[in-house]
Amino acid sequence: MEHGSATATASPNIAFVKYWGKRDEELILPYNSSVSMTLDDSLNTVTSVLFSKELNADRFFINGEEQDLSDNDIAERFKVVGIMRRKAGSADHVLVVSRNSFPTASGLASSASGTAALAYACSRALGLKLSAKELSIIARQGSGSSCRSILGGIVVWKKGRNADGSDSYAKRIAKKEQWPDLIDIIAIVSTERKRVLSRSGMQQTVESSSLFKARAKFAERNSRDFAKAVKSKDFDSMASIIMKESNDMHAVMLDTYPPIIYLNDVSKEIIAAIHGLNESSGKALAAYTFDAGPNAHIITLKGNEEAVRNALSRVDGIRETITAGIGSGPRALSEKDSLIDMERLMPKS
Amino acid sequence: MEHGSATATASPNIAFVKYWGKRDEELILPYNSSVSMTLDDSLNTVTSVLFSKELNADRFFINGEEQDLSDNDIAERFKVVGIMRRKAGSADHVLVVSRNSFPTASGLASSASGTAALAYACSRALGLKLSAKELSIIARQGSGSSCRSILGGIVVWKKGRNADGSDSYAKRIAKKEQWPDLIDIIAIVSTERKRVLSRSGMQQTVESSSLFKARAKFAERNSRDFAKAVKSKDFDSMASIIMKESNDMHAVMLDTYPPIIYLNDVSKEIIAAIHGLNESSGKALAAYTFDAGPNAHIITLKGNEEAVRNALSRVDGIRETITAGIGSGPRALSEKDSLIDMERLMPKS
Repeated sequence: MEHGSATATASPNIAFVKYWGKRDEELILPYNSSVSMTLDDSLNTVTSVLFSKELNADRFFINGEEQDLSDNDIAERFKVVGIMRRKAGSADHVLVVSRNSFPTASGLASSASGTAALAYACSRALGLKLSAKELSIIARQGSGSSCRSILGGIVVWKKGRNADGSDSYAKRIAKKEQWPDLIDIIAIVSTERKRVLSRSGMQQTVESSSLFKARAKFAERNSRDFAKAVKSKDFDSMASIIMKESNDMHAVMLDTYPPIIYLNDVSKEIIAAIHGLNESSGKALAAYTFDAGPNAHIITLKGNEEAVRNALSRVDGIRETITAGIGSGPRALSEKDSLIDMERLMPKS
Repeated sequence: MEHGSATATASPNIAFVKYWGKRDEELILPYNSSVSMTLDDSLNTVTSVLFSKELNADRFFINGEEQDLSDNDIAERFKVVGIMRRKAGSADHVLVVSRNSFPTASGLASSASGTAALAYACSRALGLKLSAKELSIIARQGSGSSCRSILGGIVVWKKGRNADGSDSYAKRIAKKEQWPDLIDIIAIVSTERKRVLSRSGMQQTVESSSLFKARAKFAERNSRDFAKAVKSKDFDSMASIIMKESNDMHAVMLDTYPPIIYLNDVSKEIIAAIHGLNESSGKALAAYTFDAGPNAHIITLKGNEEAVRNALSRVDGIRETITAGIGSGPRALSEKDSLIDMERLMPKS
C-alpha cells in the first residue's frame, strides 16, 4: 500500500464525574474513574490522515495552521500517531489535517475530540482493526479525557489498576438511545484563554492539595453511583452527583498552592440560579458543571430547556448559549470529506 | 452588694489557621485547633454590664439598639451571662450595653470582640476571679472564635478532647512584644451583608462536604506547624500556612452542598497580586487570608507595608483599606467610660 488515508469526526465530551490528577504522567493514568456524555455534531473535529512514503516529514495542521511538533501539548497528542505506526509496523511519515467546528466561544477544549478523531482516522488509514477498548487506550495516551470521546452516549473511564494502563479505558454505560433527551446548554461567560493549563494545573493539585486524596476517593464512589443512577433512570441523583462533582473538583483546584480559581462571579450567579430553579421546582430540573474555565455547562432534559433558559436569563454576564445533544461517537467520513489534497499532499485550501 | 457593674473592651481576632466546623453545637467545640492574632484598638467593642436587683428583666443593647434575646445568635452569645451568673450564685437581672467602634465596611464580625468583652466585664461585675483559661472556656460557649480574643498577641485555640469542653480553650503562643510589627491590612471589597451566616454555613459543611475530615486533619497539623514557625521567627512559613489555610477553608466551603462561595472576582485578583508580590521578591512579604466574606486580610510586617500597598493599588475594586496592629487583649475600663446611666439604669444617651 503506497498510501493509507482516512477521515474521521469526533466530538468533545462533558464530564459528569471529573478527571483531575494523573497517577502516571507518561501513560496518562488517572487517580479516579470519571464519567461523561459525548456531545453530538454541534461541536466536532474532523481529522484526515495520510501515511505515505512520499512524505519526508510528519506534519500536523489544525484549522489551517501548521503545529510545532516539539511543543509539549502537540507532541503529547501526536503520541497517538507513533503508537499506531508501531502497531501497524509502518515507518511512513504522516500528514494530519484537522479542523474544529467549535463555536469559538465555547471554551471547550478541542483536545478530546481532536485526539479521538486522530486515533480513529489513524487506525483506519493503517488498516488496523482495533476494538473500542484498544482505540480508547491509545487515545488516552495522547489526551486523557479523549479516551471517553471514543464512544458515544454516556461513558465511564475506568481508572484501572495495572501499571501499564491496560485496564484504564472507556466503556459505554448508556447508549444515546437510552438518554435521547439529555442536553448540555453551554452558557458562555468569558472568551478569555485560560491562564492555567489543565496539564500543569492538575500536576500542581496532586503535589500540593491536602484534600486531593479524599477527592479521588469521593470521585471513585461517584463514578459507581452515577452509573447506577443512569441505569435506574434517576435524573435527580444524576443531577446531584454532577453538581457535587463540579464543586468538589473546583474545591481541590482552590486548595492547590498557589490556588487555581476558574469560577468567576458570573459562574457563581449561575450556580445560585440552578439551585434556585431546582429548589423552587421541588426536584432537580438541571445540573451545572464547570471544567477548567468559567463557562457553565447546564445538563438537563429537553423538556426542561425552557425553564432552564428562563432561570439563566436572570443572570447578568452570560454572553450567549450553545446547546449540544448527546452524541453517538466518532465515525468515518467518506473520501470527498477529506481535508487533504491528494495531488499536492497538503491541506486542501 | 446591691449593684455589680464593670466595663471592658476587647478586639476581634483574625484567624491564621481557620475554625470552620463544630463537633459539638451546644458547647461549641471545634473539629480542629485554630490560631489567630488579636487585633489592637483600631477595631474594638466596649461593653458595660450591670447586675442589679433593681432590674426586672435582662436587657441587651448593641450600638443603641435593643436586641431580641430570643434571637438565636443573640441568645447564644448571651449564654455567657447565664454561665457567669451560675458561677457567682447570682439571680440578678443584667443590663448589657455594648458599642462597636468598627469601621462599618470592615466586614469583621463583632461577635468575637463583643463576646470576649461581655465575658470579661461580667466576671469583674460579679467579682469572679477567673483565669484566662476559665474566661476563654466561657466565651467560647457564646461565640466560638471569641475565646481567642480573651488573650492578646498570637493565640491558639486548642480543640481539646474532653466531651465537656474543659480542655478546649485559648492559649497565648506569642506576646504582642514578640511580634510587634505584625499588621493586618484589611482590603475592603464589598460592604454587602454575607448571605450565609457562619453558624449555619459550617454546619452544612460538616454535614455535606466529602473533604471536610481531610481538612480538619490538615488544619490540626497547620496549628502545630504555625506555632513552631512563630517560635522560630519564620515569617516565610507563617505566610505560606496562612495562605494555604485560607484556601483550604474556602475549598471545603465550595465543597459544601449547595456550595458556599465567599470569594469574588476582586478577592481572586488580590490573591494573584500577593502571590505575584512574593514571587517577585523571592520570599514571602505578605499573606492573604479571607474569613466568611470577600474582604481580604493581608498579613504582613510594618516594613513591608509600602510594598503591599503598591501591589494592592493595581487591583481594581478595592474600596478602601483599614490597618490594624497586633493587640494586647481585653482590659477593664474605668467607671467614667461606662456606657450605662446609673441613675436611669439605661444606656447613656
